[in-house]
Amino acid sequence: MKIQVTQENLNRALTSVARIANTRNTLPILANVLIKTVDNRVCVAATNLNIAITHYIGSKVKDKGGITVPARLTQEFVASIPGGVIDLRLDETKLHIETDQYKSTINGTAVDDFPVMPSIENGTSWSVNAKTLKNALSQVVIAASSDEARPVLTGVYFFTDKGNLFVAATDSYRLAEKKVTKLKDEVKLLVPATSIQELLRLISDSSEDVEVKHDEQQVLFRIGDIELVTRLIEGEYPDYKKLIPSKFATTAKLDKNDFVNITKVSSLFARESAGSVTVEADETAKQVGIRSIASQLGENTATAAAEVDGTGAITLNSRYVLDALNATNGQSTNINFNGKLEPCVIKSDEETDYTHVIMPLKS
Amino acid sequence: MKIQVTQENLNRALTSVARIANTRNTLPILANVLIKTVDNRVCVAATNLNIAITHYIGSKVKDKGGITVPARLTQEFVASIPGGVIDLRLDETKLHIETDQYKSTINGTAVDDFPVMPSIENGTSWSVNAKTLKNALSQVVIAASSDEARPVLTGVYFFTDKGNLFVAATDSYRLAEKKVTKLKDEVKLLVPATSIQELLRLISDSSEDVEVKHDEQQVLFRIGDIELVTRLIEGEYPDYKKLIPSKFATTAKLDKNDFVNITKVSSLFARESAGSVTVEADETAKQVGIRSIASQLGENTATAAAEVDGTGAITLNSRYVLDALNATNGQSTNINFNGKLEPCVIKSDEETDYTHVIMPLKS
Repeated sequence: MKIQVTQENLNRALTSVARIANTRNTLPILANVLIKTVDNRVCVAATNLNIAITHYIGSKVKDKGGITVPARLTQEFVASIPGGVIDLRLDETKLHIETDQYKSTINGTAVDDFPVMPSIENGTSWSVNAKTLKNALSQVVIAASSDEARPVLTGVYFFTDKGNLFVAATDSYRLAEKKVTKLKDEVKLLVPATSIQELLRLISDSSEDVEVKHDEQQVLFRIGDIELVTRLIEGEYPDYKKLIPSKFATTAKLDKNDFVNITKVSSLFARESAGSVTVEADETAKQVGIRSIASQLGENTATAAAEVDGTGAITLNSRYVLDALNATNGQSTNINFNGKLEPCVIKSDEETDYTHVIMPLKS
Repeated sequence: MKIQVTQENLNRALTSVARIANTRNTLPILANVLIKTVDNRVCVAATNLNIAITHYIGSKVKDKGGITVPARLTQEFVASIPGGVIDLRLDETKLHIETDQYKSTINGTAVDDFPVMPSIENGTSWSVNAKTLKNALSQVVIAASSDEARPVLTGVYFFTDKGNLFVAATDSYRLAEKKVTKLKDEVKLLVPATSIQELLRLISDSSEDVEVKHDEQQVLFRIGDIELVTRLIEGEYPDYKKLIPSKFATTAKLDKNDFVNITKVSSLFARESAGSVTVEADETAKQVGIRSIASQLGENTATAAAEVDGTGAITLNSRYVLDALNATNGQSTNINFNGKLEPCVIKSDEETDYTHVIMPLKS
């Protein structure tokens, strides 16, 4: 292999892929990135066997070939050198990287030892605006579980209903659902939340459309020159729709920033009680108060002005409230609930296609 | 106690002192801050027994008194609430903190259980410009040791010589010395580097003079309304002056940013060799090269243009070189040495009162 690339392109590609190459893996070669010529381009790729990312960059290819080299060292090295043209030359398994000022040799491992990057031959394809997808996924991925004991809950569920694409996630304590866009195809995909986190990192502000292609086992997301392929989670997603109440005994509308501030302050006092706080909506006083449960450290009540319909109280995990508020767009937020045992819905009038549900704690 | 303070003042005071209150201490009360009226002001203080910080703030004192409360909770709480007037009221050991929106009660511990804050009755006093002192201490404290096996090396040495105040630190692998200012008094103080780090944090850009007062055991630094008192380290400081060479077989002058960049890149390849890199100054090629020692991962040579007098090479710890360059002011830097075994001096023509010495590694 003998190629010329720019530092800027190689750095971008290594930044895209190197994060998923990691040294804690049982297969040492998975800590490497693959650098390989493909026609007149160079593909830079890494995988952790659950997920594979490939970034194609333009290149002057003098001799074709490929090698795998330690991801972290290579990325840090390329990120540290100045912009401009870099020469890459392979001498058996030694990769020589040279600029005017820097001459490096990185010891690599042959491409044959690297896992074959997954591909999807036959499958359904559709595409969605990159920014729309990114916003929607950011709003729901926070509700996915990290507990591998119930694998379906560690996924983000993509599905279509009456011509609309939805994404949803729940860890059984809270649930987030977003209507993404109109879509003709029938879709039903359960994608690991960890892969969604990587996907979110790869969608930049300048990305246009994201192409999605999937078969029974895998899904591929293509964002410009980057491809992310991940396995799908098997199993039936819970029928969460029936958990979302549509009528409420108490509804309160207040400024979102006020709501964030009073929740934050109360959560400081709720550390001993695992974040448990009581939200009290008072129709007469026209306010929402958040009270932390009295503890060894002390106690706190914080209030904010609100439009309240039906006085009531509910005990929630303050961290879940903050996550929900951070995920909600709009200047104002509604918090709606039915007594102490039923799910609480956080939603904004300004964004009716996003719903966040939090299960109450016993108080 | 019944007082009124502004959130801004109380927040500033808690930020100054709360860091040294910590929960890992064997005495639980040391995780608390003291809040106490002193005439028409309020003193906010904390100590870890080695160091004590007191910050005085203006206050409306309605009833005098004092209490100690958990530092972390109190600081985070006050930092989270909006600016404006705060009412503090003591009810036995419960501290009530109230604003329009927030009503908190923090459970405290009586002042009697808190260690008496140290004071210096008789001693020498002098003062120094805050910015000058801060710059000088930042430049030398990095060279102090963190190894408690040789206590004197964990200190920053303040001393006067021929009417000038110097500060110096060494961990025996490297040494930094700075001439601070003219000073009439005779000074010889060995201050723990950890206390110097706290002092640096307390000196802000708006600080004017720092007043220094010391006896045999302790030193007090007063920065505006803040007082830091720390114990001194006992013992004789090594006579380091004789270690600094004044004549050199090799001298090289190069752009400081170039020097930083080539050292950083080479250090990436030097992880297996504990940061060891070889600096090569070449009079004919008019360049300085940094070569990382070949390792399992690979090797690297990086070069930068330089004015060289006397070709030569020396092997150094790249982290120490980067620390020295970061501490040195000026656009250009000189690196001067005598063969492979003698100390190497890093210095800038633009800042003759700062000297940084690094001991070579065996290559």
